[in-house]
Amino acid sequence: MSKTWNVYLSGEIHSDWRERIKKGTQATSLDVEFLAPVTDHAKSDNCGVAILGAEDNNFWHDHKGAKINAIRTRILIESADIVVVRFGDKYRQWNAAFDAGFASALGKSIVTLHDPDLTHALKEVDAAAQAVCQTPEQVVEILKYVIQQD
Amino acid sequence: MSKTWNVYLSGEIHSDWRERIKKGTQATSLDVEFLAPVTDHAKSDNCGVAILGAEDNNFWHDHKGAKINAIRTRILIESADIVVVRFGDKYRQWNAAFDAGFASALGKSIVTLHDPDLTHALKEVDAAAQAVCQTPEQVVEILKYVIQQD
Amino acid sequence: MSKTWNVYLSGEIHSDWRERIKKGTQATSLDVEFLAPVTDHAKSDNCGVAILGAEDNNFWHDHKGAKINAIRTRILIESADIVVVRFGDKYRQWNAAFDAGFASALGKSIVTLHDPDLTHALKEVDAAAQAVCQTPEQVVEILKYVIQQD
Amino acid sequence: MSKTWNVYLSGEIHSDWRERIKKGTQATSLDVEFLAPVTDHAKSDNCGVAILGAEDNNFWHDHKGAKINAIRTRILIESADIVVVRFGDKYRQWNAAFDAGFASALGKSIVTLHDPDLTHALKEVDAAAQAVCQTPEQVVEILKYVIQQD
Amino acid sequence: MSKTWNVYLSGEIHSDWRERIKKGTQATSLDVEFLAPVTDHAKSDNCGVAILGAEDNNFWHDHKGAKINAIRTRILIESADIVVVRFGDKYRQWNAAFDAGFASALGKSIVTLHDPDLTHALKEVDAAAQAVCQTPEQVVEILKYVIQQD
Amino acid sequence: MSKTWNVYLSGEIHSDWRERIKKGTQATSLDVEFLAPVTDHAKSDNCGVAILGAEDNNFWHDHKGAKINAIRTRILIESADIVVVRFGDKYRQWNAAFDAGFASALGKSIVTLHDPDLTHALKEVDAAAQAVCQTPEQVVEILKYVIQQD
Amino acid sequence: MSKTWNVYLSGEIHSDWRERIKKGTQATSLDVEFLAPVTDHAKSDNCGVAILGAEDNNFWHDHKGAKINAIRTRILIESADIVVVRFGDKYRQWNAAFDAGFASALGKSIVTLHDPDLTHALKEVDAAAQAVCQTPEQVVEILKYVIQQD
Amino acid sequence: MSKTWNVYLSGEIHSDWRERIKKGTQATSLDVEFLAPVTDHAKSDNCGVAILGAEDNNFWHDHKGAKINAIRTRILIESADIVVVRFGDKYRQWNAAFDAGFASALGKSIVTLHDPDLTHALKEVDAAAQAVCQTPEQVVEILKYVIQQD
Repeated sequence: MSKTWNVYLSGEIHSDWRERIKKGTQATSLDVEFLAPVTDHAKSDNCGVAILGAEDNNFWHDHKGAKINAIRTRILIESADIVVVRFGDKYRQWNAAFDAGFASALGKSIVTLHDPDLTHALKEVDAAAQAVCQTPEQVVEILKYVIQQD
Repeated sequence: MSKTWNVYLSGEIHSDWRERIKKGTQATSLDVEFLAPVTDHAKSDNCGVAILGAEDNNFWHDHKGAKINAIRTRILIESADIVVVRFGDKYRQWNAAFDAGFASALGKSIVTLHDPDLTHALKEVDAAAQAVCQTPEQVVEILKYVIQQD
Repeated sequence: MSKTWNVYLSGEIHSDWRERIKKGTQATSLDVEFLAPVTDHAKSDNCGVAILGAEDNNFWHDHKGAKINAIRTRILIESADIVVVRFGDKYRQWNAAFDAGFASALGKSIVTLHDPDLTHALKEVDAAAQAVCQTPEQVVEILKYVIQQD
Repeated sequence: MSKTWNVYLSGEIHSDWRERIKKGTQATSLDVEFLAPVTDHAKSDNCGVAILGAEDNNFWHDHKGAKINAIRTRILIESADIVVVRFGDKYRQWNAAFDAGFASALGKSIVTLHDPDLTHALKEVDAAAQAVCQTPEQVVEILKYVIQQD
Repeated sequence: MSKTWNVYLSGEIHSDWRERIKKGTQATSLDVEFLAPVTDHAKSDNCGVAILGAEDNNFWHDHKGAKINAIRTRILIESADIVVVRFGDKYRQWNAAFDAGFASALGKSIVTLHDPDLTHALKEVDAAAQAVCQTPEQVVEILKYVIQQD
Repeated sequence: MSKTWNVYLSGEIHSDWRERIKKGTQATSLDVEFLAPVTDHAKSDNCGVAILGAEDNNFWHDHKGAKINAIRTRILIESADIVVVRFGDKYRQWNAAFDAGFASALGKSIVTLHDPDLTHALKEVDAAAQAVCQTPEQVVEILKYVIQQD
Repeated sequence: MSKTWNVYLSGEIHSDWRERIKKGTQATSLDVEFLAPVTDHAKSDNCGVAILGAEDNNFWHDHKGAKINAIRTRILIESADIVVVRFGDKYRQWNAAFDAGFASALGKSIVTLHDPDLTHALKEVDAAAQAVCQTPEQVVEILKYVIQQD
Repeated sequence: MSKTWNVYLSGEIHSDWRERIKKGTQATSLDVEFLAPVTDHAKSDNCGVAILGAEDNNFWHDHKGAKINAIRTRILIESADIVVVRFGDKYRQWNAAFDAGFASALGKSIVTLHDPDLTHALKEVDAAAQAVCQTPEQVVEILKYVIQQD
């Protein structure tokens, strides 16, 4: 099959889960393209004022940046076949849950990735997912299976 | 205007913000219908096993309940004109952020309601909102204004 | 809440499951409207030739009838909030599975109703459902819960 | 015309109908890409527990697998121009009828493939199809005709 | 069932077929609302210039009128559940075929109504229809059956 | 016909065109509901800061207000059958042209209302309209004709 | 610009208008792909029975063929950017008007091509078009202009 | 990432802002394709009569041209990921605001580009934008950031 599968990797930016998924699929011949938000935390937080000018008020500082980031995330999620959403153990990560809801309303296939101790808190997000993984390697296995029957 | 406005109140179920919004609009003649998820915490957590049978595994216990709850929330959000999303100071509230993302992809008008100290953590959600409120009374003012020019 | 919930009851027409669901909700004040296909087997099989003229060939006999029946089923499924799909122990019931797939692609909430011994054969249909019931009374409980928090 | 036609081959996995269709088109210069579900029966049944961990309960064993398989089938059906649905003489094949309903709601062109003795049982599915074939070779003829005017 | 069925009656305006359908359903308790284009031929032809000012050029005379008529027909077809399209023996009636194509792309259920000698010329339109009738009374029978199981 | 027609009146708020349209239809029995943006200029400009708190920066002052106003305009345009867009001789009125583009992408029927000396400047907007009027009375005539064949 | 423009050429199959359009664009570097229905009249009429078996009844003979042809036409119109619809002086050509209605509901840009003496009969179709041409060379000029600013 | 980003540049055609954006991105390896309306003012104004024949009436002169131009603009905006809308200091530029509304209803990411003295007049358009720029170089910075994290 010649189709390229677009897989958007949403959520946590403080561990190497994206790299582990990419590494896991490189050994294969999977025709997959990984998409992601801007993962440089400082850049992501400050892009609005860096490009469009400083703000005195924190709210507008954040607002300008978040709207620019949304250009990228919205377009890439809309072009994705599968959206993997990772929840880590730090921060509130409401953007990850927002992405999951956004993807769900678009009818995308969602795969979540988190530790079992988040099961109860994430039950609504997991209920919208096609698979709930605990390790990046499980995500790789799913991609290999659904793309290559492997 | 004879249109009934459907307003879905998503999020926190441990404070009286829904009641304050309803009370604030009762004094007016606003033609508004408030919709909400099941707000009884215990019932919401256990509806799956209570109706469809017990599960040994916590994951499936939560999963069965979350999927039944999603019947209600998805249908009501789809029928809403405006989705108000409240973030409180307890719990992770990923379901609220999920609802916001879901509503955003459907093109609904979103109003968020939270304290200023959550501004940075909620910047992606606020970026998708038409208004960011700090008090239920501000939500009431917005409803009065957009529905009745008042 | 003043919303009327439309619930389409798809599938088996040889047992009293529809009546049991209706009876179960009549004792309540649920604002629900039940929709269904034509459930008179003979009429349903022969409506095409009865209205539009006889056919020598069985294929066209069936085809004319099935297309007229599809007018009703398609319109009612599209207007439904929830689609309950019942699989019994007789016949192949491919139309029930077809309805489930149709409803799923439209983003409807699906509830299946069948005996546990059909679990393996129905796994793809159940995977698209928000709840899997074994008795009409469980369906009633779900409706009471999602509509009335009861 | 430089368009590649995507043709999804849904249904029966116990006869060689997919190979016969592929072989029939290889002799031609048809620009067609055939898509299919995972056709390894054992893998398909067990993918959920094999990747995400064992389940004591058969229902969840099946459920986890069916949801992962749905990632593939849903994405590929959505990307298809034509969906061919094959019904054989074994098993209940509710997944094939589900796929047909799903494809129909998306407005895909459906071609069914089955023996005449299934005509009555499949009348609702055939009523949603653009063509009803009895042999894989007829499917090949249709593809040659609609793609190449041949 | 409390649903009102909207039935749009498109096409020929020189015979009494609309009246025969309405009369046929009045004897019943069918909850049906009949919609139609403006059926006064002269008014329909001249509405553009009558309201918006005369045109020297016939093309613009027709164009202004046709665009105003399209306001009505497009809105009513979009709100219809069933679109009945009548082809008579006079005029070219391209607007009727246009309505049928428009309704088909919107996924409406189409019923055609014409004499058998138009079968070959109308084969593409009939191929998109759920039923092909020869008399208004057959249309009435279909409405009674699909709405009331009668 | 029992359908209520929703007609959104977009644009100029400094002349009495909305009142003239409403008066013109009151003499008739037209079942029409007129929708409109907030037409109190000062309120509309200041609603953001009045409800959500003052801003030092004019840009954010305007931004907060415009986003709240968009809740009303977007919801009402989406619920409209016909969108009348009025361009007067003062101000730049980019919001009116924005509304027209928004309505056009949603497939709404658009009627424009402006003096002939704006014809060249408004040619792209008029090209998306079903009718181009110069007086509110012409709009009334169109509504009477398309709703009541009058 | 690297976009390939898909242009579907619908309607009359008894004159050389398609060839004249293709020839007219070959001299240019337009990146355009022309799509069309099967234009072999006999093949088009008989494809149903030729592939799927003979029918005694003319209606089903035509029906089987028309449904197979619709696979091609529907898929290609859906993939088109521009739909050119040609009406000649022979036959009733209801399929051409049907295609125009279908394309219109999908929001495609429509260009009609016909002699001025058909203006009145085609006013509803022309009202849905972006341009009304009398010669294939005008269609070529439009393609050159909209694709290449030429 | 191998995705090509389509960026539509709408609005003002009398300054070099498009060239400055293109130049700014050429130094980078951004995989971006810029789309635009026909920017030759005279050609754009006269394309209708030049191709389809002269008109005595200015309204129809403009109308024929505007509808042909809409073929290009509508198709390109629909294929765009990002729509940049430029407002200059001359002309009324209602077409630019119309494009912005059209793009907004389609869910496109909008970036506006204008001087601060237009802030109040453009507040409704800016409220629908993800970013509000004052210089073409800021647009370039946004493209580099959202496409390349740069």
